[in-house]
Amino acid sequence: MIRYNEQGLVPAIAQDRASGRVLMMAWMDEKALETTIATGRATYWSRSRHEYWVKGETSGHTQKVHEIRQDCDGDALLLLVDQTGPACHTGAASCFEAAPALLAEASAD
Amino acid sequence: MIRYNEQGLVPAIAQDRASGRVLMMAWMDEKALETTIATGRATYWSRSRHEYWVKGETSGHTQKVHEIRQDCDGDALLLLVDQTGPACHTGAASCFEAAPALLAEASAD
Repeated sequence: MIRYNEQGLVPAIAQDRASGRVLMMAWMDEKALETTIATGRATYWSRSRHEYWVKGETSGHTQKVHEIRQDCDGDALLLLVDQTGPACHTGAASCFEAAPALLAEASAD
Repeated sequence: MIRYNEQGLVPAIAQDRASGRVLMMAWMDEKALETTIATGRATYWSRSRHEYWVKGETSGHTQKVHEIRQDCDGDALLLLVDQTGPACHTGAASCFEAAPALLAEASAD
């Protein structure tokens, strides 16, 4: 039911379930998804390092996974997590808060 | 600064700015992103139809874009939008609410 891409990967969006903040987007293959479900700890596939990556294993900034949803056509995942510490390696709470916005609120109105 | 993939695309996550609900994930190429910034209407690239797709152009379920953020390594986008009507073609408020969860809250505790 999950539609993995030609590399066998599916994008996984992590959202903090308490704040609703979108924390990051990473990739999972079938084994990473199975591991995440089995352990309740977000486990991704690193496309650059070509290895599995348990979020927070080094930094301690783990993601406890409470819910995993697929989208209507099964080619994207949404994880509802409890994030410990900042999600981003830059120290930002979210990877989407580490760089300036491309479009900021006022200019869109 | 945006790192498009080998197909010239970057994943774009749409989040409702009022509710915080993650609505969908779709893809943008450079022109779709430029069009979205210029018009304030979410415009994606359809990988199956090979065409640009202004969200809600047919259904009326538009996305007014208030903010666009990139992640720390520039290979994913987050759009904060005002969603008119349901985001999903199934009629669900979010594409991530159209199918049963792969992992549901209680079992992760």
